[in-house]
Amino acid sequence: MVRNSLLSGGGTGYKTPHLKRGWNLSLFPAAQREHLHQKMSENGALPRGGKVLTVDTMNANVKKVDYAVRGPIVQRAVQIEKELKEGVKKPFEEVIKANIGDAHAMGQRPITFFRQVMALCTYPQLLDDNKFPEDAKNRARRILQSCGGNSIGAYTTSQGIECVRHDVANYIQRRDGGIPSDPDNIYLTTGASDGIVTILKLLTAGEGRTRTGVMISIPQYPLYSASIAELGAVQVNYYLNEEKCWSLDISELQRSLQAAREHCNPRVLCIINPGNPTGQVQSRQCIEDVIQFAAKENLFLMADEVYQDNVYAEGCEFHSFKKVLFEMGPEYSSKVELVSFHSTSKCYMGECGFRGGYMEVINMDPEVKAQLTKLVSVRLCPPAPGQALMDLVVNSPKPGEPSYQTFMMERTAILSALAEKAKLTEEILNTVPGIRCNPVQGAMYSFPCITLPERAINEAKAKGQAPDMFYCMKLLEETGICLVPGSGFGQREGTYHFRMTILPPTDKLKILLNKLKEFHQKFTQQYS
Amino acid sequence: MVRNSLLSGGGTGYKTPHLKRGWNLSLFPAAQREHLHQKMSENGALPRGGKVLTVDTMNANVKKVDYAVRGPIVQRAVQIEKELKEGVKKPFEEVIKANIGDAHAMGQRPITFFRQVMALCTYPQLLDDNKFPEDAKNRARRILQSCGGNSIGAYTTSQGIECVRHDVANYIQRRDGGIPSDPDNIYLTTGASDGIVTILKLLTAGEGRTRTGVMISIPQYPLYSASIAELGAVQVNYYLNEEKCWSLDISELQRSLQAAREHCNPRVLCIINPGNPTGQVQSRQCIEDVIQFAAKENLFLMADEVYQDNVYAEGCEFHSFKKVLFEMGPEYSSKVELVSFHSTSKCYMGECGFRGGYMEVINMDPEVKAQLTKLVSVRLCPPAPGQALMDLVVNSPKPGEPSYQTFMMERTAILSALAEKAKLTEEILNTVPGIRCNPVQGAMYSFPCITLPERAINEAKAKGQAPDMFYCMKLLEETGICLVPGSGFGQREGTYHFRMTILPPTDKLKILLNKLKEFHQKFTQQYS
Repeated sequence: MVRNSLLSGGGTGYKTPHLKRGWNLSLFPAAQREHLHQKMSENGALPRGGKVLTVDTMNANVKKVDYAVRGPIVQRAVQIEKELKEGVKKPFEEVIKANIGDAHAMGQRPITFFRQVMALCTYPQLLDDNKFPEDAKNRARRILQSCGGNSIGAYTTSQGIECVRHDVANYIQRRDGGIPSDPDNIYLTTGASDGIVTILKLLTAGEGRTRTGVMISIPQYPLYSASIAELGAVQVNYYLNEEKCWSLDISELQRSLQAAREHCNPRVLCIINPGNPTGQVQSRQCIEDVIQFAAKENLFLMADEVYQDNVYAEGCEFHSFKKVLFEMGPEYSSKVELVSFHSTSKCYMGECGFRGGYMEVINMDPEVKAQLTKLVSVRLCPPAPGQALMDLVVNSPKPGEPSYQTFMMERTAILSALAEKAKLTEEILNTVPGIRCNPVQGAMYSFPCITLPERAINEAKAKGQAPDMFYCMKLLEETGICLVPGSGFGQREGTYHFRMTILPPTDKLKILLNKLKEFHQKFTQQYS
Repeated sequence: MVRNSLLSGGGTGYKTPHLKRGWNLSLFPAAQREHLHQKMSENGALPRGGKVLTVDTMNANVKKVDYAVRGPIVQRAVQIEKELKEGVKKPFEEVIKANIGDAHAMGQRPITFFRQVMALCTYPQLLDDNKFPEDAKNRARRILQSCGGNSIGAYTTSQGIECVRHDVANYIQRRDGGIPSDPDNIYLTTGASDGIVTILKLLTAGEGRTRTGVMISIPQYPLYSASIAELGAVQVNYYLNEEKCWSLDISELQRSLQAAREHCNPRVLCIINPGNPTGQVQSRQCIEDVIQFAAKENLFLMADEVYQDNVYAEGCEFHSFKKVLFEMGPEYSSKVELVSFHSTSKCYMGECGFRGGYMEVINMDPEVKAQLTKLVSVRLCPPAPGQALMDLVVNSPKPGEPSYQTFMMERTAILSALAEKAKLTEEILNTVPGIRCNPVQGAMYSFPCITLPERAINEAKAKGQAPDMFYCMKLLEETGICLVPGSGFGQREGTYHFRMTILPPTDKLKILLNKLKEFHQKFTQQYS
């Protein structure tokens, strides 16, 4: 196999057992990768024979991209699953993937109403079937009437189906206590990721010291660092305060901005609320402070609000940036440029596979908006089924409609289970000496701090691995639990974390947490 | 409204009636746009009041992007449709959009089997319904078993669902007479556009004279020029030979390459076969010559083969680049880097809204492939419904299966109608003095050459419009027919064309062609 040729040729000192397939060198930090790569080339182990496209001649920005949520540890998890299927004996029977916010994969059932309408849109012959409730049929008819040739297989306008954009605007207006939302400011997207990358793309300009700087929280969701790298923008880190439940301090924003201005042009401030991977929910006051800061410092605001329904902790509430902005009065609401992102993938629906999403752009220069519309038109349109699903999320069954009760029951059951699991996760993890876990106030993840023995850190470093990668890889090999090391999200130097979703069913989550507890104790002992 | 502020403030000499909404300035060529923009700024007509993001501070590459298929003429068509709805009197009753290859929007019915399976995947409760044929149920079960939690709402692996990639590889192998295809070389995509942009992104590197040059045919499908502009690569034009039915001459490739080497590093050769917008089907010999050329000149080949089932002309046949490459023997098949693209949007299915597609990468450097896998993982996965639909396209009902007959009937009916319409279009257009139309051998478009009177050309230029844009805009206003001017695809200096799809139903197509004939005669008279 071509791939294996990467590993042929002796004498490279290249021995880690997990490196047999896929992202071979990417388990190593960049510096060591370069070194290994060079060594292998010298040895003639890399048969580059006249390729037009090689790692040396490819897009340098793409090389810098890292995306931990689907990184080497997940590749290894997939491989282990295959080994288990092939009958290889392991100290566990299944891999539990707590690495990604993928609710359905963890056994969550889809919302019945949503899937009924989607089936009707897909195969309209079912509109004559009396098995389907009338409100589902009405929704489907309305969506199909807005599609070219009444088919969800037609291209939609690039900004998204008009009636869906109207429904999104109405939803936002209801959510934000009547503050108006203009359908013309809504862009449907291929998941939230697509929207985020598109806006970052518009904002990326300049060279050298005038290059666009993008302020992101650390820890962050690695879509941000990956896109910034790909676009060749400058990543500007501000640290969340782990001691204060991952809160955002304006003084830290100020420090970060000042430092960045020495070497780039920071123009964008990205906020994830509720937080990923950190699970905090921002207070209204904090949001107001951030907006004030952005206004004062002339920053474009990007608010990633895909977890807006995932708020569990008592006393916490979701406040949209849009609402707070408008409540601050015209001095702010007529000035601050803001884009807010939402998605069908999270909250109670968890429909990740459909890649549905929207963004609302506020106070965007009209000429830039025209450029945005032009830019999205090159990709023709977001997937129509994802758009239809987004419509159902923002236009769910109303009291009095036939599907209302079932819908509310399903929705409530999912959100209460998540709230319970958020609490459970925090409680069990905090019983483990050497693990410290902030409350999971919202979103779908815990991001606990782990204490690693000096000897483990040294052994990891000797292997060229981040210490928390070393920890997570060992956890995976010994227990089948797949987590993402904190280094994939960013963390303060010398601290170690992992991200774990709270999505497995309660029974399984308990087993997982107890296995993790046991592993951590054993690991600590082994390396002390 | 914010948008209108663009147009407020008198004395800008800004008077064209189509400029009231949307891409206001984009109807004008870049130079004039700059000028107008500057004038409006001087007059204080542009309230830029401290915006972070303006056209002056945004991504300069994005500004250079143009995408004619959804450009100003389509914006105007949408506006006219609204005016008609509002009761505005026009010399026509409906807008006929022959600007985009959107089969369902033109009334084509979806393939029953495809939609049955998709409905089953979406709402698996229907698996108990005896209205659905067994083969549809089997396909749905197989797809769902490959999805996390058996739900199409789960994320898939970034490269795409494994069983779908297997089916794609089997399809390619069958299509290409047994030449092996490896599922590991298949990447599912969000439509073909997504794959094309991703590969171009990998290939873009260098600065100044070492910048990657991308060879594209002229006329071309503007996704290519748009992506090249966005990525900051260099567009390298080679001209198709209109006199020889839009064929590709190697001497022209050679000329183009040589000229490009003076100022950039041409590394990629893009081919669209069957051709868009030009409708030609390449001969086997031509493909062999192109491959030989690519091998000799060290070019990476990108073969856009989304119209592979759309071949109508007698004596024409689709030959995949992959098959020809492998038939040329190991000297070529072990060396030439090739990526081929396919999609659910064209052929007989026309399922554009689902955004399904795949690419097969051949002879890609394994390290680059690992980078590609990493890059696509940042966007998590292509839409799962699009992946499922792609599966059905490559794994359609087999003889003996209950859905086979209906499927074949539907498929054949669509493809024969297209063949008939291809012929009809060529025939009628060639009866018009001043229109010259090559045979529509394949794909979905005719791209006739039109003779425009000198006076029309001058009037257009005085308005700052491309002459064929002027022509198409007048056609739209007077007849409701929406075409795309040739200037959006590129054409030899001093020649004028338009692109017209052959998708409207036969009756409507006849009306359209006759209206067009009448318009052209009137237009010619008026400006002679």
